[in-house]
Amino acid sequence: LEPLNRAKEILAETLHSCQEVGLQEGLQAQLAGGKALRPALSIWWGKQIGAPPFLSEQWGLAVELLHNAFLIHDDIEDGDRWRRGRPTLWVSAGIPIALNVADFLIAEAYRRVASLTDTSAETLVQLLRDFSETHRTTVIGQALDLHHRADPEFTITDYEQIIRNKTGRYLALAWIGPARFAAWPQDRIDALWQLGDELGPAFQIRDDVLDLSPGKGRGGEIGCDIREGKPSILVAHAFQSAETTPEQKSRLLQVLEKPREETTPPEVDWVVRLFEDVGSITFGNDEARRRRSKGSAIFSSLPGISSTSVSEFESIASYLIDRKV
Amino acid sequence: LEPLNRAKEILAETLHSCQEVGLQEGLQAQLAGGKALRPALSIWWGKQIGAPPFLSEQWGLAVELLHNAFLIHDDIEDGDRWRRGRPTLWVSAGIPIALNVADFLIAEAYRRVASLTDTSAETLVQLLRDFSETHRTTVIGQALDLHHRADPEFTITDYEQIIRNKTGRYLALAWIGPARFAAWPQDRIDALWQLGDELGPAFQIRDDVLDLSPGKGRGGEIGCDIREGKPSILVAHAFQSAETTPEQKSRLLQVLEKPREETTPPEVDWVVRLFEDVGSITFGNDEARRRRSKGSAIFSSLPGISSTSVSEFESIASYLIDRKV
Repeated sequence: LEPLNRAKEILAETLHSCQEVGLQEGLQAQLAGGKALRPALSIWWGKQIGAPPFLSEQWGLAVELLHNAFLIHDDIEDGDRWRRGRPTLWVSAGIPIALNVADFLIAEAYRRVASLTDTSAETLVQLLRDFSETHRTTVIGQALDLHHRADPEFTITDYEQIIRNKTGRYLALAWIGPARFAAWPQDRIDALWQLGDELGPAFQIRDDVLDLSPGKGRGGEIGCDIREGKPSILVAHAFQSAETTPEQKSRLLQVLEKPREETTPPEVDWVVRLFEDVGSITFGNDEARRRRSKGSAIFSSLPGISSTSVSEFESIASYLIDRKV
Repeated sequence: LEPLNRAKEILAETLHSCQEVGLQEGLQAQLAGGKALRPALSIWWGKQIGAPPFLSEQWGLAVELLHNAFLIHDDIEDGDRWRRGRPTLWVSAGIPIALNVADFLIAEAYRRVASLTDTSAETLVQLLRDFSETHRTTVIGQALDLHHRADPEFTITDYEQIIRNKTGRYLALAWIGPARFAAWPQDRIDALWQLGDELGPAFQIRDDVLDLSPGKGRGGEIGCDIREGKPSILVAHAFQSAETTPEQKSRLLQVLEKPREETTPPEVDWVVRLFEDVGSITFGNDEARRRRSKGSAIFSSLPGISSTSVSEFESIASYLIDRKV
């Protein structure tokens, strides 16, 4: 909890320091109300392994800024009108300003990486590589995500490829900075990436399932992913399941293919019932649990991790994955 | 000419190396047909000052990738449907894919900066600062540009602020890399930034004027800036000129305020005639010439520059500023 409060504080300081005409309002609208989860993860993790607090904070902030740029782009790409219980930025400020705010966030993220002067130039170069590689990987994941919209051939393997690229690396990134500041060797850094490869997907799978219930800050709307034809784990499972009849598959495809504003609530309800009937929801929840356990195993086998850290990690994993909204 | 050919070659190699599903076609559509001006400038400049050719190429490529991401965003923000004689990417591929291709280009640009391993870590960190600061400055310039659309209070001073941020730094960036690779001291690097502060604006002012004649690869359309309500030097001059009557100012504002698709050809023609009558076009052309000369003076006073370099610089400046399209 303390890292979360501190994370919100540094985000507010950042906002306060950006007084640029034409940017301030948009930044405020985008950043206010966010959970500041990423800097909180960096701060908490830096503390566990003895990294300099200021560096962990600045790194987490850079990751959070990049994350918010992605959110702005995702909302435009998906046509999402609600986030965190407010209109999305492109809805409230228009697409031109939304795009420019996202550009500012990306530039500012890299500028923050560039200004981590309390570490060696070699470490900073290494971190720039980590940051830009992860940025690139996330975009490749998003390309696959867009490519598989309403795709009847979509499989669990394709899904795995999307979420490893789009979510896995990206969640681990918040922890890579502190680990490099604490001079961790590459093999332990690699273990952190692997941890991300399990926890990130667990988080995303849970997100896919939660899309079927109200309360995600989207004005109570359920089934946004269905309306957008998104390649979720539920879609992959339902298309591949032997329990789904050919007629059901073809109706599922029809609903996914419809433009989001034309999809009716009864169509969404039909898909949700299908996911229940053929076991896609159970499959998703089982997968999320399985990967969360795998993540826990990787975490607790990291050398030099105290039992307090392990129990705090479990609370964080719980917060990320067992959440109801 | 040789640098231009080499620049196109390295751009083609980059394209060839990106085989990602969902990205390849969009990248192809965006990058094909570009002038590859920025890597050509880096390559030429690196040669004049004895920087390692491979580093100059890679740096110029990173700048070109970032530049293309900006072009994609600008086209969406401005609603432009034509560029380089083809439909813009958001028109041919849709906004979601266009945004994702731009994200890829930005990530790839920073990844290229991060992979300049044939230089010291200290130089690379310095270059990351140059790159991300310039990225940020350009976005701030674009924020001001968006802020001053159809603004009757818009002045030449505001215009200067926009173009210094948006165009000045950015043109110089292509030369900063080679200069740092050649271990130039900071005061000479600063002279390059000043050169950009003159040449970039000269280029942009010329662009504002050329918008009034056909042939910019926009399908023959003239006055795009007028339709978009853009804060050009012509608009700033016409609003500030004592020769413009209050009635003319208010009609100019009306045309600028209209959504671009509702602006009629006679309205555009009326504005072009106004710009002629009150001397805005002459003012713009004079300003472009004046700043080009200032740029030439800065260039030729750089220490250790040969007379061949000076004469080649004049051809480049001519190509950038005296152009007809």
